[in-house]
Amino acid sequence: MPSNWGRWGEDDQLGTLNLITEETRARGAAEVRTGRAVSLALPIQPTPLISGPFAPSAQDASPVQHVMVYTGSPATATADVMLVTNHHPRSTHLDALGHIVRDGRVYPGRPLEQSVTPVGVQHGSTTAFAAGITTRGVLLDLAVDGPLANGYAVTSRDFEAAEERQKVQLESGDALVVRCGWGMTPDPSRPMPGMSLDAVRWMHERGASLYAGDIADAHPSLDATGPSPMHGVALPMLGMPLIDAAGLDELAALCAELDRYAFLLTVAPPRIHGLTGVPVNPLAVF
Amino acid sequence: MPSNWGRWGEDDQLGTLNLITEETRARGAAEVRTGRAVSLALPIQPTPLISGPFAPSAQDASPVQHVMVYTGSPATATADVMLVTNHHPRSTHLDALGHIVRDGRVYPGRPLEQSVTPVGVQHGSTTAFAAGITTRGVLLDLAVDGPLANGYAVTSRDFEAAEERQKVQLESGDALVVRCGWGMTPDPSRPMPGMSLDAVRWMHERGASLYAGDIADAHPSLDATGPSPMHGVALPMLGMPLIDAAGLDELAALCAELDRYAFLLTVAPPRIHGLTGVPVNPLAVF
Amino acid sequence: MPSNWGRWGEDDQLGTLNLITEETRARGAAEVRTGRAVSLALPIQPTPLISGPFAPSAQDASPVQHVMVYTGSPATATADVMLVTNHHPRSTHLDALGHIVRDGRVYPGRPLEQSVTPVGVQHGSTTAFAAGITTRGVLLDLAVDGPLANGYAVTSRDFEAAEERQKVQLESGDALVVRCGWGMTPDPSRPMPGMSLDAVRWMHERGASLYAGDIADAHPSLDATGPSPMHGVALPMLGMPLIDAAGLDELAALCAELDRYAFLLTVAPPRIHGLTGVPVNPLAVF
Amino acid sequence: MPSNWGRWGEDDQLGTLNLITEETRARGAAEVRTGRAVSLALPIQPTPLISGPFAPSAQDASPVQHVMVYTGSPATATADVMLVTNHHPRSTHLDALGHIVRDGRVYPGRPLEQSVTPVGVQHGSTTAFAAGITTRGVLLDLAVDGPLANGYAVTSRDFEAAEERQKVQLESGDALVVRCGWGMTPDPSRPMPGMSLDAVRWMHERGASLYAGDIADAHPSLDATGPSPMHGVALPMLGMPLIDAAGLDELAALCAELDRYAFLLTVAPPRIHGLTGVPVNPLAVF
Repeated sequence: MPSNWGRWGEDDQLGTLNLITEETRARGAAEVRTGRAVSLALPIQPTPLISGPFAPSAQDASPVQHVMVYTGSPATATADVMLVTNHHPRSTHLDALGHIVRDGRVYPGRPLEQSVTPVGVQHGSTTAFAAGITTRGVLLDLAVDGPLANGYAVTSRDFEAAEERQKVQLESGDALVVRCGWGMTPDPSRPMPGMSLDAVRWMHERGASLYAGDIADAHPSLDATGPSPMHGVALPMLGMPLIDAAGLDELAALCAELDRYAFLLTVAPPRIHGLTGVPVNPLAVF
Repeated sequence: MPSNWGRWGEDDQLGTLNLITEETRARGAAEVRTGRAVSLALPIQPTPLISGPFAPSAQDASPVQHVMVYTGSPATATADVMLVTNHHPRSTHLDALGHIVRDGRVYPGRPLEQSVTPVGVQHGSTTAFAAGITTRGVLLDLAVDGPLANGYAVTSRDFEAAEERQKVQLESGDALVVRCGWGMTPDPSRPMPGMSLDAVRWMHERGASLYAGDIADAHPSLDATGPSPMHGVALPMLGMPLIDAAGLDELAALCAELDRYAFLLTVAPPRIHGLTGVPVNPLAVF
Repeated sequence: MPSNWGRWGEDDQLGTLNLITEETRARGAAEVRTGRAVSLALPIQPTPLISGPFAPSAQDASPVQHVMVYTGSPATATADVMLVTNHHPRSTHLDALGHIVRDGRVYPGRPLEQSVTPVGVQHGSTTAFAAGITTRGVLLDLAVDGPLANGYAVTSRDFEAAEERQKVQLESGDALVVRCGWGMTPDPSRPMPGMSLDAVRWMHERGASLYAGDIADAHPSLDATGPSPMHGVALPMLGMPLIDAAGLDELAALCAELDRYAFLLTVAPPRIHGLTGVPVNPLAVF
Repeated sequence: MPSNWGRWGEDDQLGTLNLITEETRARGAAEVRTGRAVSLALPIQPTPLISGPFAPSAQDASPVQHVMVYTGSPATATADVMLVTNHHPRSTHLDALGHIVRDGRVYPGRPLEQSVTPVGVQHGSTTAFAAGITTRGVLLDLAVDGPLANGYAVTSRDFEAAEERQKVQLESGDALVVRCGWGMTPDPSRPMPGMSLDAVRWMHERGASLYAGDIADAHPSLDATGPSPMHGVALPMLGMPLIDAAGLDELAALCAELDRYAFLLTVAPPRIHGLTGVPVNPLAVF
């Protein structure tokens, strides 16, 4: 099993973000020509918390609920409070390194109780993302001919075929963006495809600093007896932050239009410390 | 009083973001050389919602509260839910155009009840920011010689002096970033400085697309009988989105180090629709 | 229109609860023989706020959402935080006197802005219920022959017929409990019955101190041009607290079994000040 | 160590509430003469969630936070949403039997994972209190001569002395109400008194069905190496529900005035299922 435990010290909180160097950033910067930008986030429609005459009595579970706040009568301002479920499956969000526990340990091998307490995450939290992540991003679009098949296991061969087809190469420190063509709210009755352990090994060898995908792990699991390759290995063992539920259709269309599959990727979640994950709106700038 | 009501139609939701053109973006893109990036956001330390043996019994009111979630025993993952006060004074946040009501109307002159209901904001909300904001940003650092004086009224002369000193010029579509040197949690007993109406007129004439400042309006008001220049005029009348409570010390230090006061600014709040404001982590990329 | 504005002073916060005297309480106490008790509250099944692998992706909007809290791993305690929508239509809750605004005024005629601010209710809130409400309760069961007809307007004649049938009489200071036979989550496509203005006048004349019903106002309104008799007149004009969405089937069955329609009613919401309403579990003690 | 595991079956959810019989209730009912009632709950002042110009920037951590909700402009109603920390030390609340875990098990000996999941409590939750608790209550006032001494360990002798002094006797099925004279927010620098294991054994022998006290366990613990007698033994081993942080000064004054220390106790939390604890406003009716 691939692992980075110890590679950057016992106390590391950056994981594969350590692979982002000045050279990586300059490579990303070199992709910026027009300033045209596209979001990699799915839209979130919050549901109102209130009810009675003011709201419907049934609702879909949104990642965000909010309350419009009374500001006086007549109102002189509008304001709201929102409640965010950080790891909601339909929210484009960034998993912090401490999100997954393996045998009582979190990246890079620390006992859970040293990293996490009831009042928050002391180590491996979103604090590591406080200044945002800026690097070159590379889209590997595996869905040019339509969504991946039910339960498909993505391997390194799919990545290398995409690199060749798109004439682009993932280099150390780049963010890997993978499109499987399975959009928001996939049919739960159909087995979702996902990354194989072989795919994770390839990310490790190539030095991917970050993963953003419309899909990460298959559901149900590709291997019911082992850990999920992305959430169970890449996140806790490699220390690779994951962006779950990215929305990649607009990006794929723009990449195809420009025939360019590399860009400057900026990921700048709200600067909230100590969380296990946080909604994010990654931008690809061309 | 300066106004853009009607300038981009009765139904406009972008306000001064309409001033961001391909040319503006290209101007921003041209500033990107190394990919070095800095955050314009203050850090937020969330406070835990729980209590009893698990949390302190008194707390400062944070913009964000969160709860660490039970995921089984022993835990196999860590997760949390957070509660966000969108317009908290110590949160770097982006005000949507519908945040302020003037005489029962919101930008661009629509009756409040057509834009806002108890279940959310239908018009002039954060939906307008769904794809992020990317443009050239220009820092005017008014605090090179220390924080502005108590109750100081910033005018166009301060801006033009800074432009000359820094050898930079705010052009139409640029984002204006203003540093007053009053950091987080200023002493409430000291009158905060703020923008004058003259300063807002200058932003209007120059075509600023966005304002980000460590301070916006003075507190107490510069003119107790009139509207606040930024929240009462620039936001509702010009339709200029405001970033409140930006953290600009790191940016100012980097600009001074590089002797460059223009950069690519990306503002990418979580893609949550229908809010009156949202926490944001603006990035300046050099 | 019946009104109690001014009857107990300009500053009154108790409304018709002023009608509960030592004599009323003794009348209630005299009904207690065995200590057998029944709840008048509907059960509330909270919905979990979390998601991902831990919760379903769709949910009915419950009055209460909650989060199971992480307490360490392995867990030494279980704990939770809950979010309550105080006026949820499927929650048995007690409306405070300041809940309804009429022409900018709340009971007993105070301007809204003197009673309510963005930070809470200063006057006419749940603070008035801090020590609970204890009085004699009288059930008038209008649904002995089945639910009231669609859109039926309840009048004083229905009440008096029930009194005669049940051999009980509502006296001044008693709590009036009315069963219409429309249980929880009635079919929204069928017009709900409700109290007429005549029914409210009867409550006023008789001196009802409190109303608890499985239904209060008809939906849609009996009179689209006027205020709702219960929420629009009884609550703000009479100052009569309302218990919305009571669950009365168990109570009706017990009353029929014992052939006794009067009991000691205790209403003891959590002692939380300053709310506009609060969930409650009224008990009828026999 | 006293234990009721298995006494009422492997699947029991009532614990010592099983001791409340018709006879117990009738004994309580016999105490009701005038209907005069007093609350055993501390008042809770909720803190507003909003901020900016609408709220203070610092606050004490209240058990309840709330948001006043926008209902239109001008407002036609007032409404709010509240967030409740169920086990807050300054909230009078009822602990459910599943609140404490001992060696991975909860009352009556079930493995934790069979009772509790991330989405709620399946067994031993507040569901058991859905219809309220009604029984005879007996106040033993240990603080007639002032608050108990710092770190005092309450024993069965204190209880029996109080019974003799007050001419009252706790019988099987009665609720035990204990006043130590340590009110809300005691000075954290002074060691709080608390129940000893001997006191718990006495409750077990006498058949107390419920405990309500201004204090339960000492803080710091009387015996640092063992479980807390109330939360660590009475709750999980005896299955005795606990009311934490009761407010007993009014009750003690009324008992002294009437020279009666027994009453009908009704405990009727909001009928919310599946919680680990819930705020409550117990009423003593005389």
